[in-house]
Amino acid sequence: MHRGIATVSLSGILEEKLEAIAAAGFDGVEIFDNDLVASPLPPQEIARRCADLGLTVDLFQPIRDVEGVDPARFPAVLHRVRRKLEVASALGAGTVLACSNALPDAVDDPDLSAEQLHAVGELAASFGITVAYEALAWGRHVDRVGRAWAAVLRADHPAITLAVDTFHMLARGDDGSALAGIPGDRIGFLQVADAPLLDMNVLEWSRHFRCFPGQGTLDVAGVVAAVLEAGYRGPLSLEIFSDVVREADPFVTARDGMRSLVFLEDQLGERLSGPVREQISVAPPVPRRTDVAFVELSDPTGSVYPGLLSGLGFHVAGRHRTKPVVWWRNGGAHVVVNEAAPGPAATAFGLVAPPVADVAERAAALLWPAVDKTRGEGEADLPGITSPSGLHVFVSAEPGETDDWHTDFVADDERAPDNGWLGLDHLDVAVSADQLNEELSFFRTLFGLHPVSSEEYIQPEGRLRIRALRAEKGDLRVALTVSDSGAGAQQHGITQMAFATPDVVDAVRRIRSRGVELLSPPDNYYADLDARFALDPDLLVLLRKHDLLYDRNATGELLHAYTVPGEGGFQVEILERRGGYDGYGSANTHVRLAAARRS
Amino acid sequence: MHRGIATVSLSGILEEKLEAIAAAGFDGVEIFDNDLVASPLPPQEIARRCADLGLTVDLFQPIRDVEGVDPARFPAVLHRVRRKLEVASALGAGTVLACSNALPDAVDDPDLSAEQLHAVGELAASFGITVAYEALAWGRHVDRVGRAWAAVLRADHPAITLAVDTFHMLARGDDGSALAGIPGDRIGFLQVADAPLLDMNVLEWSRHFRCFPGQGTLDVAGVVAAVLEAGYRGPLSLEIFSDVVREADPFVTARDGMRSLVFLEDQLGERLSGPVREQISVAPPVPRRTDVAFVELSDPTGSVYPGLLSGLGFHVAGRHRTKPVVWWRNGGAHVVVNEAAPGPAATAFGLVAPPVADVAERAAALLWPAVDKTRGEGEADLPGITSPSGLHVFVSAEPGETDDWHTDFVADDERAPDNGWLGLDHLDVAVSADQLNEELSFFRTLFGLHPVSSEEYIQPEGRLRIRALRAEKGDLRVALTVSDSGAGAQQHGITQMAFATPDVVDAVRRIRSRGVELLSPPDNYYADLDARFALDPDLLVLLRKHDLLYDRNATGELLHAYTVPGEGGFQVEILERRGGYDGYGSANTHVRLAAARRS
Repeated sequence: MHRGIATVSLSGILEEKLEAIAAAGFDGVEIFDNDLVASPLPPQEIARRCADLGLTVDLFQPIRDVEGVDPARFPAVLHRVRRKLEVASALGAGTVLACSNALPDAVDDPDLSAEQLHAVGELAASFGITVAYEALAWGRHVDRVGRAWAAVLRADHPAITLAVDTFHMLARGDDGSALAGIPGDRIGFLQVADAPLLDMNVLEWSRHFRCFPGQGTLDVAGVVAAVLEAGYRGPLSLEIFSDVVREADPFVTARDGMRSLVFLEDQLGERLSGPVREQISVAPPVPRRTDVAFVELSDPTGSVYPGLLSGLGFHVAGRHRTKPVVWWRNGGAHVVVNEAAPGPAATAFGLVAPPVADVAERAAALLWPAVDKTRGEGEADLPGITSPSGLHVFVSAEPGETDDWHTDFVADDERAPDNGWLGLDHLDVAVSADQLNEELSFFRTLFGLHPVSSEEYIQPEGRLRIRALRAEKGDLRVALTVSDSGAGAQQHGITQMAFATPDVVDAVRRIRSRGVELLSPPDNYYADLDARFALDPDLLVLLRKHDLLYDRNATGELLHAYTVPGEGGFQVEILERRGGYDGYGSANTHVRLAAARRS
Repeated sequence: MHRGIATVSLSGILEEKLEAIAAAGFDGVEIFDNDLVASPLPPQEIARRCADLGLTVDLFQPIRDVEGVDPARFPAVLHRVRRKLEVASALGAGTVLACSNALPDAVDDPDLSAEQLHAVGELAASFGITVAYEALAWGRHVDRVGRAWAAVLRADHPAITLAVDTFHMLARGDDGSALAGIPGDRIGFLQVADAPLLDMNVLEWSRHFRCFPGQGTLDVAGVVAAVLEAGYRGPLSLEIFSDVVREADPFVTARDGMRSLVFLEDQLGERLSGPVREQISVAPPVPRRTDVAFVELSDPTGSVYPGLLSGLGFHVAGRHRTKPVVWWRNGGAHVVVNEAAPGPAATAFGLVAPPVADVAERAAALLWPAVDKTRGEGEADLPGITSPSGLHVFVSAEPGETDDWHTDFVADDERAPDNGWLGLDHLDVAVSADQLNEELSFFRTLFGLHPVSSEEYIQPEGRLRIRALRAEKGDLRVALTVSDSGAGAQQHGITQMAFATPDVVDAVRRIRSRGVELLSPPDNYYADLDARFALDPDLLVLLRKHDLLYDRNATGELLHAYTVPGEGGFQVEILERRGGYDGYGSANTHVRLAAARRS
């Protein structure tokens, strides 16, 4: 596929945008009229720069409001279009994008629109240029792809083709089936964008919240597959605008965009077959399953975490063959303490995600950077990949296989009894607001995690936004958190590690007896629990006695407790799921945040 | 009036919120259940703290989903309500707020709801507590005040009253007339909030964008006046939630809230008459008119601005009697250069806003801080008020009156010819995102400026949001700008001063000849002008020759030019309005920003 991106998708001035786009490896570019108008470079010079950078100018965009115009004002439209075609011609763009009329006074007369589009097509043809006509989701009359296609048919001019934009289609509830019967050679351009599902005015939604494919919730691949199946072989071109991207480094954004196209083509590989499938370069697949192996704490002095881990009931299970790394274990829960990394901090974890070699290759195809590290002789090959927020994620084979992380450790002979914890339930990872999309992309594109919820809480100093992800197959659950607190430094890395226990009351009793301090919910909280759930008095006494938080839904119950935030900035959550409870106790978030603030 | 505020309106933890509320001078408080649940203080202790701080507990809120409930689950509701009434009772709150059922499974059966509300009323009465029932704008069935009132009537219990919330009413398109015929003694509580008009899901709108009265666009005073006219004499209580307030210092928010109530009462004073009018304490009125007197530049060395001002065609018109301040003039445009203030910067301006004494008193009533300054003998009394962003605004009497600012200056004998500029057209003032609401409030509440537009532009590194305000009577126009650029330091203070000229071509020619550098729009911009407006070729040549930007609408034309950003961080705009053109050339903003970035 020819991979393109619109200059409007990036921040900066035109010259910088083009450099960033070329650096990310794109094949072509859409030039946004406003970028050109504000640039001191003449169109010919822009064309030359693009050529020097190895970029084709795929599109010049947009020309607006060219049909559905009061006939008295149509000569002015033709004047405007002619001037813009001169620019497109000087740019060497073979296609211009015309979007449907969004003016309040647009005339609803299909015959008039067809006649005007035909005239625009005639003019474009005289420049050897094709017009791709797009239904804006907020077009006054033409607001869906079906109507745009009807207008193209009625215009009946070879230089008037249909532009497909995944955002505009999906935003209006259309999917690939809306393109049924449209021949691929009548589709003049394909713009690609995703967005999170938001219930708001579609124009505002489009202007502020579009994102790259795989970062939102729309079925972008479905529409793109339909366009390719129709026979379209032109550029796959990203066009997004969002508040986040407007403030981001254009080089980061361009790389992120390129990555999203790799991911998209990879999804297309699954959907398509036959000759069109061969157009697509597909990266190795996501892992068969993705389970948590261990959390890694860095502790240069080796003195910060042993106390906490012992207190939590972990014991030393082994030592690394060649590095100053200690493996701690409590039942199915594993923590490794690395004395050779800067800290104290919690900024790495290990996954069992076979086949390991495929994950490493997939990461490379997606431009996710590898962790620099040395590997001793006879040690497992655990590829490490760095997430955009700086997390190190190490990938291990399954227990017993070659490249199983356990084989790097010499087991300790003396095995103290542990509390038989079940394993790591989930991790909270704090990212900055401008990293959220890229970090989501990392987990989605590399491991195939899917978003399960998007929630928001009030914390004492601002909002806390949480996007939870989990593995399709496997036990990995990650919650990305963004703290929009104006005050103070932002927390980064792992801020919470939640361990599942078969008996949280027993676990908390033991932890306390070993001197680990837990957050203490206030009495008012227990009064509220009683009000909300009419709890059995014995259970209420038990919860209060052990400082446990509680939640219940139709499928089961959650009992959980938290350590006070300690060195490295993270809290440990200890939880017990009863019945089919599958959530995170989010109703208790405000109580936990206030208790942590007061602790 | 008894002035209150809900704890949910402030950031922080409960103890801090109560202190901030008391410090701002409120009479009472609504305790938000989540704040209480997360607090280690027992309700009795919270009540004691409030009493110690001089605050009454006016309301405990909310109890949710108490009617329209499946009868099988109603005993659990009564259990929950009883527990919450125990809390309210311990708090000493005479009223609890119940909001309409917003659950997807709420039952649409007015008789059932009435019966259940009656039962809740019976329970509340046993505690000596009144329930105020509120229609949430997103209630499942009861989503407008009329429906809530019908439910209250049907419930037919003295302890079940109506809660009025200005946001919920106005958000659904109701105004004060929706309360016609409702007796004041059946209105149990009045919550007050404003919001900017946004086309989005009302729940999201409410959660993220509510603001204090006078900061938004809703007719809050109209609803409050109707409630008071109905005979309600209870608290006027602020309840807002917004992303901005969640991150703000609670002491700043509380003061801002108090100020908004002063402003609201002041608006009520205009609307009401008779005995109810006497409940209202009204501040002195806004100025009769508000005209620009001068812009003040601070220049400790006295060497930074004379070159620029001379270049622009200003000449020295006088010197201050006692201070190192020089008065420069170009026709009707006045700039004073203060060598005794830190700089170089543009952070002050003067207004002619009579009567001056009233403005000073009004500022004090609104808690806007006065500028510290000394006044020499025989000098005009120019009260100075500091805006939230730190601007100093000085207020002068009209020319020729006592306390006219001119009288502080000794006129220069030698008067060089000037360009006969018309005066200051408008000022752009940069504020940070979290100051925007308070800064808007400053201009609206103190001078009665009204918002004329709210716009948004893409700049090379992020969004630029502009809220323009102008005087009802008088020539003052201010545009508050918020730069959401992630990178680099934020600009503050006056970033642009636009002067009106009768002949911008002549002005620009003279300015250039004196060596002042102007921004140069690119050729592509003029090609675009031609495309859009099919301009007369002579005009196009003229515009291009003089680096003028151009805009046209149905009423007239704007021709304008900008200096490159200089010391003190501001640009000077020189503009000529032709015909009735009343805008700011906003279509050219992206070109100006890119040219400034490249300059």
